[in-house]
Amino acid sequence: MGPTCVGQGVPRKEGEAKVAGRAAYVDDLRLPGMLHGVTVRSTAARGRILAVGFGDGIPWDELVVVTARDVPGVNHVTLLDTDQPCLADGVVNHWDEPVVLLAHADRHLLEEARRRVHVEVEPLPAVLTIEDSLECRTVVWGKDNVFADYRVERGDPDGARRAAVHVVVGVYRTGAQEQLYIETQGVIAVPEPEGGISVHGSMQCPYYVQKALGPILGLPPERVRVVQTVTGGGFGGKEEYPSMIAAHAALLARKARRPVKLVYDREEDIQATTKRHPSRTWHRTAVDAEGRLLAMEVDFVIDGGAYKTLSPVVLSRGLIHSTGPYRCENVRLRGRAVATSAPPHGAFRGFGAPQSIFAVERHLDRVARDLGLDPVELRRRNFLHRGDRTAVGQEVREEPDMEGLMEKALEESDYRARRVACRRARERPGETVRRGVGLAAFYHGSGFTGSGEVHLASVASLECGPEGRVEVQASSTEIGQGTSTILAQITAGALGVDYRLVEVAPPDTDRVPDSGPTVASRTCMVVGRLVERCAGQALEVLRAEGLLPGGGHDDAQFVEACRVWCARHGPLRTHARYEPPPGIRWDPERFQGDAYGAYSWAVYVARVAVDTLTWETRVEDLVAVQEVGRAVHPLLAAGQVEGGVAQGVGFALYEKVVWRGGRVANARMTDYVMPTSEDAPPIRVHFVERPYAHGPSGAKGLGELPMDGPAPAIIAAVEDATGAALDSVPLLPEDLMVAMEGVIESR
Amino acid sequence: MGPTCVGQGVPRKEGEAKVAGRAAYVDDLRLPGMLHGVTVRSTAARGRILAVGFGDGIPWDELVVVTARDVPGVNHVTLLDTDQPCLADGVVNHWDEPVVLLAHADRHLLEEARRRVHVEVEPLPAVLTIEDSLECRTVVWGKDNVFADYRVERGDPDGARRAAVHVVVGVYRTGAQEQLYIETQGVIAVPEPEGGISVHGSMQCPYYVQKALGPILGLPPERVRVVQTVTGGGFGGKEEYPSMIAAHAALLARKARRPVKLVYDREEDIQATTKRHPSRTWHRTAVDAEGRLLAMEVDFVIDGGAYKTLSPVVLSRGLIHSTGPYRCENVRLRGRAVATSAPPHGAFRGFGAPQSIFAVERHLDRVARDLGLDPVELRRRNFLHRGDRTAVGQEVREEPDMEGLMEKALEESDYRARRVACRRARERPGETVRRGVGLAAFYHGSGFTGSGEVHLASVASLECGPEGRVEVQASSTEIGQGTSTILAQITAGALGVDYRLVEVAPPDTDRVPDSGPTVASRTCMVVGRLVERCAGQALEVLRAEGLLPGGGHDDAQFVEACRVWCARHGPLRTHARYEPPPGIRWDPERFQGDAYGAYSWAVYVARVAVDTLTWETRVEDLVAVQEVGRAVHPLLAAGQVEGGVAQGVGFALYEKVVWRGGRVANARMTDYVMPTSEDAPPIRVHFVERPYAHGPSGAKGLGELPMDGPAPAIIAAVEDATGAALDSVPLLPEDLMVAMEGVIESR
Repeated sequence: MGPTCVGQGVPRKEGEAKVAGRAAYVDDLRLPGMLHGVTVRSTAARGRILAVGFGDGIPWDELVVVTARDVPGVNHVTLLDTDQPCLADGVVNHWDEPVVLLAHADRHLLEEARRRVHVEVEPLPAVLTIEDSLECRTVVWGKDNVFADYRVERGDPDGARRAAVHVVVGVYRTGAQEQLYIETQGVIAVPEPEGGISVHGSMQCPYYVQKALGPILGLPPERVRVVQTVTGGGFGGKEEYPSMIAAHAALLARKARRPVKLVYDREEDIQATTKRHPSRTWHRTAVDAEGRLLAMEVDFVIDGGAYKTLSPVVLSRGLIHSTGPYRCENVRLRGRAVATSAPPHGAFRGFGAPQSIFAVERHLDRVARDLGLDPVELRRRNFLHRGDRTAVGQEVREEPDMEGLMEKALEESDYRARRVACRRARERPGETVRRGVGLAAFYHGSGFTGSGEVHLASVASLECGPEGRVEVQASSTEIGQGTSTILAQITAGALGVDYRLVEVAPPDTDRVPDSGPTVASRTCMVVGRLVERCAGQALEVLRAEGLLPGGGHDDAQFVEACRVWCARHGPLRTHARYEPPPGIRWDPERFQGDAYGAYSWAVYVARVAVDTLTWETRVEDLVAVQEVGRAVHPLLAAGQVEGGVAQGVGFALYEKVVWRGGRVANARMTDYVMPTSEDAPPIRVHFVERPYAHGPSGAKGLGELPMDGPAPAIIAAVEDATGAALDSVPLLPEDLMVAMEGVIESR
Repeated sequence: MGPTCVGQGVPRKEGEAKVAGRAAYVDDLRLPGMLHGVTVRSTAARGRILAVGFGDGIPWDELVVVTARDVPGVNHVTLLDTDQPCLADGVVNHWDEPVVLLAHADRHLLEEARRRVHVEVEPLPAVLTIEDSLECRTVVWGKDNVFADYRVERGDPDGARRAAVHVVVGVYRTGAQEQLYIETQGVIAVPEPEGGISVHGSMQCPYYVQKALGPILGLPPERVRVVQTVTGGGFGGKEEYPSMIAAHAALLARKARRPVKLVYDREEDIQATTKRHPSRTWHRTAVDAEGRLLAMEVDFVIDGGAYKTLSPVVLSRGLIHSTGPYRCENVRLRGRAVATSAPPHGAFRGFGAPQSIFAVERHLDRVARDLGLDPVELRRRNFLHRGDRTAVGQEVREEPDMEGLMEKALEESDYRARRVACRRARERPGETVRRGVGLAAFYHGSGFTGSGEVHLASVASLECGPEGRVEVQASSTEIGQGTSTILAQITAGALGVDYRLVEVAPPDTDRVPDSGPTVASRTCMVVGRLVERCAGQALEVLRAEGLLPGGGHDDAQFVEACRVWCARHGPLRTHARYEPPPGIRWDPERFQGDAYGAYSWAVYVARVAVDTLTWETRVEDLVAVQEVGRAVHPLLAAGQVEGGVAQGVGFALYEKVVWRGGRVANARMTDYVMPTSEDAPPIRVHFVERPYAHGPSGAKGLGELPMDGPAPAIIAAVEDATGAALDSVPLLPEDLMVAMEGVIESR
């Protein structure tokens, strides 16, 4: 075997094209005869459509106009349910719901035309909060506004609570958050012969788009070709929504019989597409005198918006993580995803876990405070160890060593000394800046929840050509996170050849098998494992034919082996289908069992400075210690952590969606404020490597984990700095000021 | 019938998109996954390919490399013959012949790679002139270097010559000329499922490209889709060459399995693509004492370059026009297209006629000079009239009234007074600028030569939709000359509806029938007539169903009729196939008969000023009087004349291809100089309208005619100004200086 490139900082496969400006994003593409498309949207949170008027001054017969009547197949975007129309028909259930589509070659005329379409809506009562939805006076979905309701009970939480010394109750909230990928949503649909369609666009999951488009257009899957274009970020926001915009472009293209480009501007993207689910979490926790967790009760509710979309799965992941990396034998969990009149909330890095982890970490801090115990000590006493069971009953099979991670984080951040120093500084008179430190301990499952991976049955394949060029074929998308690089590294490592011999095929449903969606921290661990197996099979084939020695080979030997094999048989192709690690079982009825094949583990420590004149909070330092198995590409992995932390800083302190009557009122980057590089703290990333037996080269998932920890650590630090009891994010200066009123009054 | 828009200056159909910058030329297009292609060319005029070397420093395995071995079907571009390879294989027959194709995403790398491919050629003797070719010491094509050899004999030219008072002999030459379309050649080829291919590109004749590509790729026509993109000029240069570049792009795309864009830069375009055939014409003319033409003998030879391409047809058109619009009963014509080692010469506005008309008009001036007769008077005595026969025996069925056209031209240009004034001015001592006037009388056939239109059997169709929108479907291309506008005008006129109701479908072999190529001044007269008939049929259908009154209708009635018809039967479709005007017959064996359905007629007068210090000639005035039937769009028609005159000025005075060992040595617009608007004279365009019974709304062809007259009129004027005997174009200052040596010596 040649030297492996796993663990090395090889050049990113797609890096040069991006840096050189050669990478073609969807809006860079221009197809022959192409028209532009726009979407006319609802102007109410809920109501009946009385009429659609087309105003004067527009040559309407020159435009392609599409309404629900033009949908040849089913008028819904197939996901978990079929409740979400592709185009509103008769009623609208949220602001900015698509009603009419227009296409024309002239973008200026088109923009003018969009403004002249008047969708007349008779308002119906809307539901604007989780509380309104649960109260159920107005029913906006099904019989009771509930998309999903999961319950888990283990042990005897009531008995344990009654026997406990302390019972601590708390309610925690998180707000909506916009993914803010640099590249907004966009696709180009191209009509193909005999009614077929091709879609090229910015997306995470080409096969999801293919599955959604077939029924809408009345086409079998083989007539729908979906190709991912270079994608400028996703963060989950390009998991489900691309099916909607692709369907719209396809309907326009079909009617126009010409390619149609549909690209959202930032305002439309923020207003109309999915955001992170707002949440409310109730905790009741019973502890003994030493602070051991005797019983944990959680009621986790997320706002799914107007349609079901992926909310039950988001709920599921959130609920599974809702008790954190702690041992507790008596557990009662309830999780509900409820309907409101907001645009559907959807996938966003972390997928429910950042919400429930914020709650449990903040709650543990409250327990510690109530017990007069140090938060570090409380956690240490309750961490999961090998042989323990998680809240949903999964046995922890390998020692997570959360103590070790926490000790490393405390050391790197100089937590103990800082905590003392901050307290002393706060006591100095005249000091207007207060500092504090906080930590969060957490874990995050890799791959799909429950039996998801088994049902997905993902496939990847590998093709070795006569010149020894190797092509990885998978539908996993490069969205800036490094898919192409790490899949090539894993393959090159497994084949024992130079990284440069390996290319990754562009995700195109006509060319690559369905390796599942690019979500859920699954690409490296799950798909990487598939390509590793493909590579192993290729070596076996070449060895069995006597073309490679058993003991090892160099690149020249490999190339020669490929040449001979291909001359004899044609290109060498291998493929692998997902198989769960041994002993992994999930019981969906009881919502218990092995929720994930593996978990990554982490402890983050934040230090903040709060300006008591402006109530602005600045994160001054963030130490991120995690165990993710093996880091295939340490630089990319560190980048994932840095990006996740920055997004977590935004989630905690900056990014507030302002709702006005169910509509996003601040859909611009000037008033929906994300942290810039100026606002980001120094992020000190540490990987503790413990190779995972069933991951490729020992790797587990990493994409979502760093989103979970920053918010609870930062808010804990603000609490440490200010003394305020803080239970919600985002915490903007005005929110902190209000919270401080309680502190000041109580003095 | 509503008011017709024929004869009105309606807005150009494609004008707004061009002016607004919305028009997408092929180089504006960017397709998903697209690569760029380049061509490696031969570096000798003729020779054997010994080896193709790929130099160091290029990652060759990252490039797509195509050679003759990669051609899956036949390795030739099908045209009249199959002699021209798509990629040179073993031998090269001209400089810059394509040998190797390369594709890559990075244009810089690609350019570097192109430079590193070394085509090693063992030279073979080359043929560089018409004389060398005729001498036949070196045979570069067939047995005798002759692509085609036509002979025509009518009456008794030898007897007539022997009985004549005067016999005048002359030899005239014209040089190669570059089309210099603003947009260089370019295509994008896209691989389609199951080995099919689509080509989008700048071209005149989508069906030619389709016919050429099928055999090369081994595909049936229905698997080859060709779509014209917005085209920035053609002038004949995009008649045959697009098949070559499309084949190259298709071969690259097929191998790369990705779209490939191949766009030439100006230098490559000038060096490698077709130019106007250089010509040499020998005339021997017998006249009686009154200057009546008793016998005309012509030996017309054109340089076809290394492969046959369209040379026999260019020769045919040139030969048919070689005796001008003059009556002569005793005629002997010989025409030959011969092979040289130049890149193949090809279609260029006029298609052989500008060459032979230059010769005959110069020759008539020589006859007039020898007879001491005014050139105007000589022409007047010999013009064709109704009932006369042309050189190839076609009876003139309608009175051309060339006298009337000439009189108009003389009046508008004040020819007689100017001629006298110029002579007097020249005699003034110390005058360094000499002025002169000259004229040319000529005609030009509309449509294909001989039985060409019958064999083409062109089809156009029309589709009326439920909203009364009418779509013209034809493969005739808009290349800046106004096809879309005039076809829509003719259709709207014939339907009696508003011009805005009519659209012209984009030329796409998947969508429009084959209405023949966009060449030979045929679009307006031939295809226009087809769409006019389609429109007539549509009206008949609507009237027969009782949906339209017989006597006339307004737009609203037409729209309503379409609505009802479409509701009952679906879209209303009509089509028409070419039928020759009654009594038109051509005998290809004898090269005699009705060479064209109709002719346009013209007299142009030029006035020049020659600076005797620099020998620069400036055209100061050009009067262009023509009879083209009816001008469908007078402004566009005048534009055609202005453009043709400008191109004729270049042909006469500016545009000289400098050959060096068979290669174009001045392939840049800085040294191959075309006239700019500064160099163009005031062009005064006059149409004498005489509607033609078999043309749409009375129209005949106009595209090529204005290319024929400027050069002979301008050179006649220079001769008038200087006294030099001038028999060649282009006449650059240095050429005129050399010619003047003879004049000065003879004094």
